Amino acid sequence: MEDKAQIQEAIKVQGEVVRKLKSEKASKEQIDEEVAKLLELKARLGGGDDGKHQFVLKTPKGTRDYNPKQMAIRERVFNTITRCFKRHGAETIDTPVFELKETLTGKYGEDSKLIYDLKDQGGELLSLRYDLTVPFARYLAMNKITNIKRYHIAKVYRRDNPAMTRGRYREFYQCDFDIAGQYDAMIPDAECLKIVHEILSELELGDFRIKVNDRRILDGMFAVCGVPDDKFRTICSTVDKLDKLPWQEVRKEMVDEKGLSEEAADQIGEYVSLHGGMDLAERLLQDPRMSQSKQACAGLSDIKLLFSYLQLFQVTDKVVFDLSLARGLDYYTGVIYEAVLTQAGVAPVAPASNDTQNGSEESVSVGSVAGGGRYDGLVGMFDPKNRKVPCVGVSIGIERIFSIMEQRAEAAAEKVRTTEVQVLVASAQKNLLEERLRLVTELWNAGIKAEVMYKKNPKLLSQLQLCEETGIPLVAILGEQELKDGVVKLRVVASREEVDVSRSDLITEIKRRTSEA
Amino acid sequence: MEDKAQIQEAIKVQGEVVRKLKSEKASKEQIDEEVAKLLELKARLGGGDDGKHQFVLKTPKGTRDYNPKQMAIRERVFNTITRCFKRHGAETIDTPVFELKETLTGKYGEDSKLIYDLKDQGGELLSLRYDLTVPFARYLAMNKITNIKRYHIAKVYRRDNPAMTRGRYREFYQCDFDIAGQYDAMIPDAECLKIVHEILSELELGDFRIKVNDRRILDGMFAVCGVPDDKFRTICSTVDKLDKLPWQEVRKEMVDEKGLSEEAADQIGEYVSLHGGMDLAERLLQDPRMSQSKQACAGLSDIKLLFSYLQLFQVTDKVVFDLSLARGLDYYTGVIYEAVLTQAGVAPVAPASNDTQNGSEESVSVGSVAGGGRYDGLVGMFDPKNRKVPCVGVSIGIERIFSIMEQRAEAAAEKVRTTEVQVLVASAQKNLLEERLRLVTELWNAGIKAEVMYKKNPKLLSQLQLCEETGIPLVAILGEQELKDGVVKLRVVASREEVDVSRSDLITEIKRRTSEA
Repeated sequence: MEDKAQIQEAIKVQGEVVRKLKSEKASKEQIDEEVAKLLELKARLGGGDDGKHQFVLKTPKGTRDYNPKQMAIRERVFNTITRCFKRHGAETIDTPVFELKETLTGKYGEDSKLIYDLKDQGGELLSLRYDLTVPFARYLAMNKITNIKRYHIAKVYRRDNPAMTRGRYREFYQCDFDIAGQYDAMIPDAECLKIVHEILSELELGDFRIKVNDRRILDGMFAVCGVPDDKFRTICSTVDKLDKLPWQEVRKEMVDEKGLSEEAADQIGEYVSLHGGMDLAERLLQDPRMSQSKQACAGLSDIKLLFSYLQLFQVTDKVVFDLSLARGLDYYTGVIYEAVLTQAGVAPVAPASNDTQNGSEESVSVGSVAGGGRYDGLVGMFDPKNRKVPCVGVSIGIERIFSIMEQRAEAAAEKVRTTEVQVLVASAQKNLLEERLRLVTELWNAGIKAEVMYKKNPKLLSQLQLCEETGIPLVAILGEQELKDGVVKLRVVASREEVDVSRSDLITEIKRRTSEA
Repeated sequence: MEDKAQIQEAIKVQGEVVRKLKSEKASKEQIDEEVAKLLELKARLGGGDDGKHQFVLKTPKGTRDYNPKQMAIRERVFNTITRCFKRHGAETIDTPVFELKETLTGKYGEDSKLIYDLKDQGGELLSLRYDLTVPFARYLAMNKITNIKRYHIAKVYRRDNPAMTRGRYREFYQCDFDIAGQYDAMIPDAECLKIVHEILSELELGDFRIKVNDRRILDGMFAVCGVPDDKFRTICSTVDKLDKLPWQEVRKEMVDEKGLSEEAADQIGEYVSLHGGMDLAERLLQDPRMSQSKQACAGLSDIKLLFSYLQLFQVTDKVVFDLSLARGLDYYTGVIYEAVLTQAGVAPVAPASNDTQNGSEESVSVGSVAGGGRYDGLVGMFDPKNRKVPCVGVSIGIERIFSIMEQRAEAAAEKVRTTEVQVLVASAQKNLLEERLRLVTELWNAGIKAEVMYKKNPKLLSQLQLCEETGIPLVAILGEQELKDGVVKLRVVASREEVDVSRSDLITEIKRRTSEA
């Protein structure tokens, strides 16, 4: 007899072959031939049972379930983030998980190949959303909204190479905050950075830096360094690699692959090594080469203005003006930023120190956890008359934050409660199911979170064990004697203390004890 | 010049033609011919601009955005439901929005045609989830979980014919609560009904009924009425139409379309007209015909037991044992139920009356808002060894509830606040932007929800108007004099009352005033 697992593996491989041919639009003959082989393999397997149980029991590649513990952590993170967004006066909206395919077309440059398309089952052609920014811009244009401050927390989809241990998934959450509207320069931009600062501080993820730059400064820099106009974007995406590669390799790519002159590359190299604060912006405004570019000067003046607002917002301790920050997406038009954690994942609480921009002892980055910028042209792309709505926003990349929080909870052997039950209604003797149900109904009707074991005659020990395991703090115990006396024995699980409480006082007593806790 | 809209319409139609041919796997020649026509039409249109703005600005068919007002209502409804689920001790989980296609295969009977498939872009074949029950069963089997009480609130997808005004969408929320595990009969089942009762009461949607039946009673009834075994399912789905069609039409379908004998149909007709409470279950246990079916007797005894628990839970006022309730899905194995609102959408608060099961004055149903039942076999379908995990659960159909709440908010001209901002930091004179930013930072850092207008020199009137429009209750006004005196003028928007508050007392004062509100 053949090895079943081997055939199944062969079927899987052959299935891939067929799908590949189809996606490459191979000839019908060629596809038919491979399909025949596939069917033959399946027939060989067919001998066994009805085939009902032969599927793989898993979630799709790059996705995961959240179990109750993970959900409890997720809820805590979302609450912190939502509280911050609401503190800054944001409304919230929601959009469908899929959009018309053409809504997403031409917004993501090369990354478009990572978009999930739905199968054409008749009707419209649809794709899963790739981020929350493009649906937001579509929403604004469609509803002719010219100003709004909104947040949106939802899942987005990218057919990327997953690296799940590092928090990179194909289905993942984004938490976006955006301000749309025609306002005075850099005030909303500064508020976005204030928000990143508040959220990362509150989540206690260890020390962090927020890098800031401006698309106009980058473009101006490229111009004065002698990069030809048509190479701005491709050189920009090479610069974007500076957070992973040393300058020498980035330079090599510019010269060898992108055909930039060595001279231009070296000039860029000088600029992108610079980082600082408002002082750096001032210095560059005086720089004989940089000051030749109108664009760069506009960007530099705005960076100066931005830093003056950031000082009032008390967040300059973490913000660095960094000329090497580029960011991939096409739609940015002004200021751009990215927050990175500078400590290892499982970090102690960061000291509230003030040692700003201490470039020399910069620790190793564990990757970007937030990013964003100004995109003044995107809404106009959806408007038939190309009416622009200036926008600036930030997206918190929550999956990496979840990973850190999970690892930390595990390292601390922290007991994460997954329910909020306050009381278990239990009985010490048999035949008291009805009495238990009557009592738990009283508690539910009074708004108390309560449970009862779904057994006619559970043992007291197993009822107490349930409380220990799930962290229920109180047990309301019924017995013949208690029923006769019109009382309930209230037991505190942690201390094992027990008191008789009269039935009429029970709800008040439970509320008193659990609001203290 | 040709009419652009006309050509666009023609392109749309032609596009459909091409897609249809492709989906029907028409010959290459035929498809090429129609594609050529399509390209010609597009070329005719091409004369204008670059074509960038010619797409339709809309959400996909059967879907919608939620604006901030709708989100505020949605949040209220979700909070009520989540509170109830947590009160009953449920944990929560989440699963990916798509599953392997084969995970969904064979679970939904005829409805499978409504499943959204993803395009084959290489790799696994995926489909969007159709409900939350099948992913839950897959989760249990995959993680070998044999008991859990969980809720899951998430979107599901059905390529159904949308009727958006009546709350029927292709993307919609389900709020599911399920209890998995081997427990004593009918205790978890009764809790599910208690939960439906609590949620529908708390949401104040007007009067409602919860119909209850049991798959075993239906099957037993079909058997004793002489329905052939292989017609159980199809006759069952005809019975399911009794909430929309009169008996005479249902009988006609049974006899004329499904080929049932007139005699059998009439016998069924007698049974399905019955509804009542525990008394009806007792009567049927004595019924000479019904009592011949072991299955029916098991179901009837359980209904009796269920009602005894429902009495302890104090919910029998709304629950009716109704032999006409069938429910479509294949996976139910025991008790089934469905909640319907019995008043028109915009209803006054229902009187807390006790007029139970008053069949004669039953008002018109506005449709089902919750449903569920017992499915003891579904998890086993995912287990290689077919190990069963008994489950019972309920799903709250939230879209119809949203529609009702929205209509009601509109009818009452209720002002729904979409933010929670407590204070606007304003200035009465020019050149005080920096002072405003400094103050709003103080408030944010103290956890107060505050805003500032993103203008250098906004007019006081426009700042006050913003408060009126968005419902901000307090304004903290800064002027030269206030700065000199170390105070802030705190204005109550509703009463126009103004008091000077010293800068050091401001946060306490704001907290005092907004916690009262």
